[in-house]
Amino acid sequence: MIPKDHPRYRSLVARERLARCAREGIVAPEGLAAHGRGEAFDYLIGERTTESAALAERTAAAMLLAARHAVISVNGNTAALAAAEIAALQRASGADAEVNLFHRTEERIERITRLLTEHGVRVLTGTPERIVPLSHDRALCLPQGIGDADVVLVPLEDGDRCAALREMGKTVITVDLNPLSRTARTATLTIVDEVTRAIPAITAACSTLEAGEAERLVASLDNTYLLRAAIDEMRERLAHALE
Amino acid sequence: MIPKDHPRYRSLVARERLARCAREGIVAPEGLAAHGRGEAFDYLIGERTTESAALAERTAAAMLLAARHAVISVNGNTAALAAAEIAALQRASGADAEVNLFHRTEERIERITRLLTEHGVRVLTGTPERIVPLSHDRALCLPQGIGDADVVLVPLEDGDRCAALREMGKTVITVDLNPLSRTARTATLTIVDEVTRAIPAITAACSTLEAGEAERLVASLDNTYLLRAAIDEMRERLAHALE
Repeated sequence: MIPKDHPRYRSLVARERLARCAREGIVAPEGLAAHGRGEAFDYLIGERTTESAALAERTAAAMLLAARHAVISVNGNTAALAAAEIAALQRASGADAEVNLFHRTEERIERITRLLTEHGVRVLTGTPERIVPLSHDRALCLPQGIGDADVVLVPLEDGDRCAALREMGKTVITVDLNPLSRTARTATLTIVDEVTRAIPAITAACSTLEAGEAERLVASLDNTYLLRAAIDEMRERLAHALE
Repeated sequence: MIPKDHPRYRSLVARERLARCAREGIVAPEGLAAHGRGEAFDYLIGERTTESAALAERTAAAMLLAARHAVISVNGNTAALAAAEIAALQRASGADAEVNLFHRTEERIERITRLLTEHGVRVLTGTPERIVPLSHDRALCLPQGIGDADVVLVPLEDGDRCAALREMGKTVITVDLNPLSRTARTATLTIVDEVTRAIPAITAACSTLEAGEAERLVASLDNTYLLRAAIDEMRERLAHALE
């Protein structure tokens, strides 16, 4: 058991949960390595929501609420870490949720769908089709889900799929702790924050945003500024790391 | 298959090998997450051996060669990534090799020992005793191995054990891509480099070092300088990341 007053309690609990979900087949081994990469960058922003990330989260809420059809794309890591948080965001935003995996097997889709459903997420079901312009199973999504969406929230996405969704003309919101990743640089809006902090922040903003603010946030979105702000945080923390 | 001309070929091959070894029980799930953290920091030093890391590697060779009894402590990740490289370092330096695991089970010890032996490593065997001042199984090591060593090379070590070995008066050389980690800051000498680049570099230095240079390197060791140099590399790379 990790003591609750441990300075890195949340981070260590997340790591344990992910390792457990890997043993249960919900998280792929590659998902554990990806989580580790995220941890390193999270450490560099101080394991907290920075000011620029908070701005990105309010902007994400504005985009989800303004969407014709918003879909949250959920992978194994996101389900393992934030199933209850996704359910709350779905209630606040009205977005659909679709399970979409890089390491796709029917068994993993079923396990993740069950986990999400147990936490109160309404998960889209149906027959996936090859819609996204990618090779192999990464092309698969639901025609009435991501296929129809104008806005897709894809936490912890792979770079190829993020680029392909953008090429399809979709607005892509991602949550990615690495501001240098291809996903971070390709998405319409990148939230450089840890997923269990980011999702509740978007949910909270959904109910506090005023109409005027929402329009202003979307109109003034500058993703390069958001990435630059995250990088500056990391540089600053590195500068003082040995003090 | 990852194409050999992919700019991140080595990194992607290492990730695949580790995921495979996780499925075989050689690498613990927590080891995959730890590898991911390393990947993030490796990305920030440009996935290459920096000048300061090369200096650290030559210094490590000098320390191994000057030791009364040098032991290489090998965990699951190191075995999965660098079994052949450990064998070559053992031949060049005369060091012993001992398997020492954070997530210790007899089965994992056996699998890792077998993997190392297949790659030509002579692995110390015997009955471990509680020698390192730590709780649980992390106290275990071989009395004729790490217990007797004056110099221990521990790639990818956990912070508690690194500190405990230092408190026992041992010289600890670590390979850790995170210059901010407790291990990096507690070790006598920290090599901020990826393990499959670091180990062959130490091996090469073992046969090219001249006696005078070896003494100079050990006498002028300044680990804070080495950590600071790695951090400066990362800051510099972050500064130009979006160009």
